[in-house]
Amino acid sequence: MARVAILLFTDFGADDLYVGQVEAMLDRHAPGVRVIDLLHAAPRFDVRASAHLLAALAQGLPRGHVFLGVVDPGVGSDRDGVVVRADGRWFVGPDNGLFSVVAARAATKSVWRITGRPPGVSPSFHGRDLFAPMAAAVVTDDFPNENVAPAADLAVHLGGADLAEVIYVDHYGNCFTGLRARAAAKTGRLVAGGRELAHAPVFSAVEPGTAFWYENSSGLVEIAVNHGSAAAELGLAVGAPVGWAA
Amino acid sequence: MARVAILLFTDFGADDLYVGQVEAMLDRHAPGVRVIDLLHAAPRFDVRASAHLLAALAQGLPRGHVFLGVVDPGVGSDRDGVVVRADGRWFVGPDNGLFSVVAARAATKSVWRITGRPPGVSPSFHGRDLFAPMAAAVVTDDFPNENVAPAADLAVHLGGADLAEVIYVDHYGNCFTGLRARAAAKTGRLVAGGRELAHAPVFSAVEPGTAFWYENSSGLVEIAVNHGSAAAELGLAVGAPVGWAA
Amino acid sequence: MARVAILLFTDFGADDLYVGQVEAMLDRHAPGVRVIDLLHAAPRFDVRASAHLLAALAQGLPRGHVFLGVVDPGVGSDRDGVVVRADGRWFVGPDNGLFSVVAARAATKSVWRITGRPPGVSPSFHGRDLFAPMAAAVVTDDFPNENVAPAADLAVHLGGADLAEVIYVDHYGNCFTGLRARAAAKTGRLVAGGRELAHAPVFSAVEPGTAFWYENSSGLVEIAVNHGSAAAELGLAVGAPVGWAA
Repeated sequence: MARVAILLFTDFGADDLYVGQVEAMLDRHAPGVRVIDLLHAAPRFDVRASAHLLAALAQGLPRGHVFLGVVDPGVGSDRDGVVVRADGRWFVGPDNGLFSVVAARAATKSVWRITGRPPGVSPSFHGRDLFAPMAAAVVTDDFPNENVAPAADLAVHLGGADLAEVIYVDHYGNCFTGLRARAAAKTGRLVAGGRELAHAPVFSAVEPGTAFWYENSSGLVEIAVNHGSAAAELGLAVGAPVGWAA
Repeated sequence: MARVAILLFTDFGADDLYVGQVEAMLDRHAPGVRVIDLLHAAPRFDVRASAHLLAALAQGLPRGHVFLGVVDPGVGSDRDGVVVRADGRWFVGPDNGLFSVVAARAATKSVWRITGRPPGVSPSFHGRDLFAPMAAAVVTDDFPNENVAPAADLAVHLGGADLAEVIYVDHYGNCFTGLRARAAAKTGRLVAGGRELAHAPVFSAVEPGTAFWYENSSGLVEIAVNHGSAAAELGLAVGAPVGWAA
Repeated sequence: MARVAILLFTDFGADDLYVGQVEAMLDRHAPGVRVIDLLHAAPRFDVRASAHLLAALAQGLPRGHVFLGVVDPGVGSDRDGVVVRADGRWFVGPDNGLFSVVAARAATKSVWRITGRPPGVSPSFHGRDLFAPMAAAVVTDDFPNENVAPAADLAVHLGGADLAEVIYVDHYGNCFTGLRARAAAKTGRLVAGGRELAHAPVFSAVEPGTAFWYENSSGLVEIAVNHGSAAAELGLAVGAPVGWAA
């Protein structure tokens, strides 16, 4: 296998004490492998928004990489763990729909269910104890191993269609939607927060304070305000509906 | 020495400008060694809570690792720096009690006082200028070196007993206590924030909104609310007293 | 070229989804090179304060390192990208003044304008698509390459003089100024927030709650309160004027 990295996508919080424990476990099982913190502020407990965000981010990153994805409100319940290979990218985490948008959009995919587990798995921290060792196994070519079994499909399906909602608000207040921009007409007017917004190609194309939509760097329709916070000015948060004006 | 990592445990803030400077210094003195951000949101200036939290986290991590620990309200005063080896794990930082809980619980320990210092040490940033080069020395086998002297013991002792207080609140609002769960009866009712809480094995075992206690992934008694914030709902913060109902 | 690291200095936010994408791009183009998060909370959209802060931080770090610096309110406009070598340190980012304080203070400097670009550059994320590959080129010795041309100088000049303002507030509430401490008399009284502050060598030299100024670990005059927040107690934020009492 070519040299690959492990990319972390979680709602663990970048400044909390969970990520470091995951990295220590990865270091133990996949020494020397690069670990990249892709996002630890995924929409908390929000599998649907997170699934759409992960799908957009992953398609911009090289094939071969392993995504350790954990947004897992049901940790400790009987939901299974899963490994998915979709268009050459790997995903390890809970089988709760988080990888189902990626999988639905992929041309090729394979699914394994995590059927075994290492000793001493904490019921509340599968990211560290179950998924990190499995991601390490994938990246070190110890996969498939005795802890997985091939599966016909995922257990939870959210579908591959766009999601007409705000799925992420960045720290500038820019609002990512679950709409892919490639299919959007640049003449379209986006309805959000009770406003109709025109397209602009870049921030600097509009006056400071003006709200607009544009194709962001992850290929999504994004709502922004030049030198301002779209979230604050339009009253938007994750889950807010958006749509195209008739 | 086997391949080991340096784990950072500080109150420097994950998004502030101190951690990167520490990492640059480590890179200089221990090139190629993995550096893991275990926690940079340790209870600020709170050596006691931090000492109990570090003890819990460290016991779940492999022997051989080097912990660079800095919670140091007295930086620039005459408190000494120290290197501790406790049950095979290394700790480098201020001799202000931060490592004394780990040390008190260890079966074997050694202590060195930092008696010399490299040129150009900033009086306000020992983490970068004094402790990082020393942690690098430990990990690169340049230890003990001319800047340390064996010591009989630590200068400040907090003891190895449990601490019946909240010692950390994570970003979900879960409240870590300084009580180790191994010794706790599952039938025990935990008193916190004026409430009596029953045990549950996992979050999903209780209804959303219900407060409970459980053994967390670091072996501590933790107060949680399924799909909610225990800190907000019970009015808890670091230092809040907890105890077992009679 | 000796082994060097890439240091990131941005306003991308440490917990947001931009840094990870930059690191994935660096991993692709400069595999195995250490990437250090120096700061992702640079004063947002504030090129002037950021330029002074970067100059102070960089002078404390080894020559040879490559700084990927992005504070770029004009991304997508016609401002150019630039590569600067100043006193042996490299800087890659927008030509909007961010590197001009470093350059003005350097004994030796060289400037290249980024004239070409790889395919698929997002107009809103030059940090990932344009500057990260260029930083990787510098660190891997693929520089100068076909995407740069030597330039006589930077396009925007902020000058090398000190800046008599608060340029950064850390998470403790300590206030960095743009005044270099080497030139400051220890008997000087600093005026800030309507108060006159005396010098103290270290935090522990004053009573808890007392405000003072000192030479911080980056060589700047800093306003601090022992065991308190100078920003809160003196009402200071980035941009607040400071000065020496007559």
